[in-house]
Amino acid sequence: MTYCVALKLNEGIICLSDTRTNAGIDSISKYKKMFTWQAPGDRVITLMTAGNLAITQAVVSLLEENIEHPEDGIETLFTAPTMFRVAEIVGDAMRIVMGRYGPGLTAAGESSASSIVVAGQRAGGDMRLFMVYSAGNFIEATADTPYFQIGEHKYGKPILDRVIDPSTPLQMGLTACFLSMDSTLRSNLSVGMPLDLAVMRTDDVSFDQLRRIEEGDENFAALSDAWSAALRRSFDEMVQIPV
Amino acid sequence: MTYCVALKLNEGIICLSDTRTNAGIDSISKYKKMFTWQAPGDRVITLMTAGNLAITQAVVSLLEENIEHPEDGIETLFTAPTMFRVAEIVGDAMRIVMGRYGPGLTAAGESSASSIVVAGQRAGGDMRLFMVYSAGNFIEATADTPYFQIGEHKYGKPILDRVIDPSTPLQMGLTACFLSMDSTLRSNLSVGMPLDLAVMRTDDVSFDQLRRIEEGDENFAALSDAWSAALRRSFDEMVQIPV
Repeated sequence: MTYCVALKLNEGIICLSDTRTNAGIDSISKYKKMFTWQAPGDRVITLMTAGNLAITQAVVSLLEENIEHPEDGIETLFTAPTMFRVAEIVGDAMRIVMGRYGPGLTAAGESSASSIVVAGQRAGGDMRLFMVYSAGNFIEATADTPYFQIGEHKYGKPILDRVIDPSTPLQMGLTACFLSMDSTLRSNLSVGMPLDLAVMRTDDVSFDQLRRIEEGDENFAALSDAWSAALRRSFDEMVQIPV
Repeated sequence: MTYCVALKLNEGIICLSDTRTNAGIDSISKYKKMFTWQAPGDRVITLMTAGNLAITQAVVSLLEENIEHPEDGIETLFTAPTMFRVAEIVGDAMRIVMGRYGPGLTAAGESSASSIVVAGQRAGGDMRLFMVYSAGNFIEATADTPYFQIGEHKYGKPILDRVIDPSTPLQMGLTACFLSMDSTLRSNLSVGMPLDLAVMRTDDVSFDQLRRIEEGDENFAALSDAWSAALRRSFDEMVQIPV
């Protein structure tokens, strides 16, 4: 499985992804699910992928191919004028790849379902956050629901529902993403360290943070332990409230 | 959907279920999913059901029919010598019902998947907790995993993973069940109040509690609010721990 979460806050966008993939429970590997592009001051783009790994890898490869060897007149992630066009380009790549492999996968009884989070900013435009579905269609995050999750999303949703709105400060949003990931890591073995983090501050049009958090990272472990202890203390208080 | 949780603690067994069912998002109803039988001092039995409502209702009706109009020599929930036999009787009823309706449902492309939690104690035996699957086969809760969840289980699993082991006091277990249910109610509209609660203390061989918690119950609301506030406070502390 996979767990990726993206928050769109007034101060910026946070993307956090795990790196575990599995084809059956006995075939577990480590694959990067976060892909980034930037031309500082011009554009900053982050993609996170979930679902059929062959499909999402093919989509990302096609996007990269078009950047490196653009056919005449083809728009790429580096030439698209807006983030909306970036989402469309990702959706078009998804449609091409699904058209090529989807029928064969369906015939074999395999799932081709895939989803891609597209986040970023183009100079002169707003920060935007999209989710592209298997059919290439997409939705955009709004103030009502300022986050997207893909993959194994349920364990990590309660904390987001409780603390996140667009006015949440970036540092608080980061903590929420890490705790959302921590709950998922604890409850589902198919989601695993290391983690990839991308932070884009509004109107910086570049990455504020772009780094990997390795297995055994002391700061992440400290947060995870402190959260466990705090939840345990909170729970012990709750036992005094009989229903 | 449905959410039911059962804990098997040294002090006793707790069963908590919601009452919402849906056939599609636009057809939502309220159905009891908890069924209880007791002959105080002789046996106490609780069933909780999830999955295809027609299947699980048919299983419970068949069990009831056999109690009210037993065929010659047929064992019923009230005559079974052990809780293991009770689980087998429930499994047998599941197999009969699935044999009757399963093929038709499959042909219609509908899911017949169902599961039933079986909990209780027979005089002279131990408290036991089983989960019966669609095929009538079943597993038993052990000290390693002293709880079962059926239905929409993911949102409410983290709290159980963090605080429950067999030595957890009954009152603390009750709080864990209520908070597990509260997280599920908040994150998934297909799980809803009122709740049904059954508590069976070890070796009482009768119900310690058997009651419904209605929508708007003041004590449940107080717990839910206190938990929200405590989580929020804990979260605010976590923001001081940078990763």
